[in-house]
Amino acid sequence: MSFFRPDIDRIEGYQPGEQPQEPGWVKLNTNENPYPPSPRVIAAINEAAKGRLNLYPDPLATQFRRVVARLFNVAPDWVLPANGSDENLTIILRSFVDRQDLVVYPYPSYILYETLADLQGGRRERMILNPDWSWNPSRAAAQTAQAKLAIVPNPNSPSGNRWSNAELSALTPPRGLLVVDEAYGDFCDEPHRGELLRQPGGERVIITRTLSKSYSLAGLRLGFALAHPDLIRGMRKVKDSYNCDTLSLAAGVAALEDQAWMQSNAARIRATRGRLQTGLRAGGFAVVESQANFVWATHPRHAPEQISARLKDRRILVRLMKFPEIPGAPQGVVAGLRITVGTDAEVDQLLQALGEILNETTGPLG
Amino acid sequence: MSFFRPDIDRIEGYQPGEQPQEPGWVKLNTNENPYPPSPRVIAAINEAAKGRLNLYPDPLATQFRRVVARLFNVAPDWVLPANGSDENLTIILRSFVDRQDLVVYPYPSYILYETLADLQGGRRERMILNPDWSWNPSRAAAQTAQAKLAIVPNPNSPSGNRWSNAELSALTPPRGLLVVDEAYGDFCDEPHRGELLRQPGGERVIITRTLSKSYSLAGLRLGFALAHPDLIRGMRKVKDSYNCDTLSLAAGVAALEDQAWMQSNAARIRATRGRLQTGLRAGGFAVVESQANFVWATHPRHAPEQISARLKDRRILVRLMKFPEIPGAPQGVVAGLRITVGTDAEVDQLLQALGEILNETTGPLG
Repeated sequence: MSFFRPDIDRIEGYQPGEQPQEPGWVKLNTNENPYPPSPRVIAAINEAAKGRLNLYPDPLATQFRRVVARLFNVAPDWVLPANGSDENLTIILRSFVDRQDLVVYPYPSYILYETLADLQGGRRERMILNPDWSWNPSRAAAQTAQAKLAIVPNPNSPSGNRWSNAELSALTPPRGLLVVDEAYGDFCDEPHRGELLRQPGGERVIITRTLSKSYSLAGLRLGFALAHPDLIRGMRKVKDSYNCDTLSLAAGVAALEDQAWMQSNAARIRATRGRLQTGLRAGGFAVVESQANFVWATHPRHAPEQISARLKDRRILVRLMKFPEIPGAPQGVVAGLRITVGTDAEVDQLLQALGEILNETTGPLG
Repeated sequence: MSFFRPDIDRIEGYQPGEQPQEPGWVKLNTNENPYPPSPRVIAAINEAAKGRLNLYPDPLATQFRRVVARLFNVAPDWVLPANGSDENLTIILRSFVDRQDLVVYPYPSYILYETLADLQGGRRERMILNPDWSWNPSRAAAQTAQAKLAIVPNPNSPSGNRWSNAELSALTPPRGLLVVDEAYGDFCDEPHRGELLRQPGGERVIITRTLSKSYSLAGLRLGFALAHPDLIRGMRKVKDSYNCDTLSLAAGVAALEDQAWMQSNAARIRATRGRLQTGLRAGGFAVVESQANFVWATHPRHAPEQISARLKDRRILVRLMKFPEIPGAPQGVVAGLRITVGTDAEVDQLLQALGEILNETTGPLG
């Protein structure tokens, strides 16, 4: 006899990418930033640790919200901090999705949205993207027409492409909300700054952001949502009172205030992204033009399973991803490698390893 | 038009105790530990901050779970760390409580359980305690008979009394689970160490623990649940992948490994608790014998609203609590002051202020 809700028994749970705890890996599988956070972040953590950890944190995260608000040109009551962007997505699903409410999202995309919808017992539909990662507007419109939530990462994962604000606005459900997951927003050539919130219909848009990627703070778990105060107010009822801790909030303020550090790392990653794309294409890979800190690569002759296994033998981790049930795709599956943009040295090591692996055999791998 | 789930629109949201962000307050309202965490905790945070914050934390919190397991004499797969005990309670409700499932809990007690049940759209029933904070076993049994979850804090808040393991075991729902919230367990004269898990029926018990209180780490947000691996496995599907951050996990390991520091502070708090109880009784208060780091005080002639307001004028915060809808209580309400055991100096300041306030008027306050 199970005591769990049937929804819980039914699902597998989301499987995050591999996180080896020992050093010695070239880790290009979970889109972490290869550069350390700002030294001002470390100083802020040390300072906060000397402070009053015996007391609860500020449940309203007043100072952090103020800094975010300034950066995105909104008032502080448009900001909801969370224990990582994941927690904000969880809060959003728990706030708005009741049993049988419909959640739609692009596919192939970030599969966590499905797990979160399942946890709520909601219905869910994939909005199948065209093979070139563009939308089929009429098909998407038919789906969003029924939806309570449309959740769209921009740039998309695993492809790394970015959609225009006009394309995104068009996805706002007429009787629901559009959630734009901008986890990778700072890596765009022209990063957005909450423009969607200020367009017509912007009061039905929620943007989620994380400090994990561009601010090099995946270990810290800090993100925030931006939305109209009417939405933030209700979402606040769902969150735990003290969901963000004293150290993270202090670190987050310092990170956001050192824009120069983040921008400089983002620029380095953009430059290395160009080299990675060029190198992969020279090796025969098809690569989507990326606006994120990763690229999506497929090879016309070699199976991604084999390539990733042989890279792992050399202690290089990339993310093998397979998206089944796609009409028109070979065997119905879109499969490929999502490769994080590491340092130049890591990318060189990867490209050299790929060259060796592909040259080892005359026939296709696998 | 609201986009929120009706359950969310209906509820108020849990209101935590006041958290003034400026110094200068004697803060006896949210049961924080007045002593700082172990210096080994600060050292561990500084060390972890120098480490690889750009990488995600260990999603399994392997090292932390190992240390907890040793302390409670269970295997590591009996342990689920969370972003504060609050998050574990949220995970438990989301794991087991479906719409219309019944959640029962003692009353007066920790009112957050009601909010969490409401968020899940579950049904809920208060198990009314006797005026002396004891159970009415036959009435409780009739309620747990129908319940999916019984949630019981031990020691109880706001009263601070502790129930025996036999009393708790008897509350296990025949077709559900017993959740024992041991947030204040380390302040008992004889702290428990997971004995309930090893008794008959222990596979249907979940114990939640926090590092906020006894380990002086409310600012850090770290707690853990202890339960049979079959329960932990399913609960893990509900939690966010990286719910605990690198700094907290490192700090948590250091805190748990410095048992001497925690025990010494807990002993000081127990000693001060005795002084506080004696002093309040000398001032005419009725005080429940406490096994926690707070005491519950009522005065036969003075209303708690007035006392807490006059204390606040003197920058002393205590927690005014009112529990309505209690058959047999005056006007149906149990009301009183929940006073955290601070340092000896803070308790002296409080007792002196109370003496002055009660002497200011000849008649009853309010």
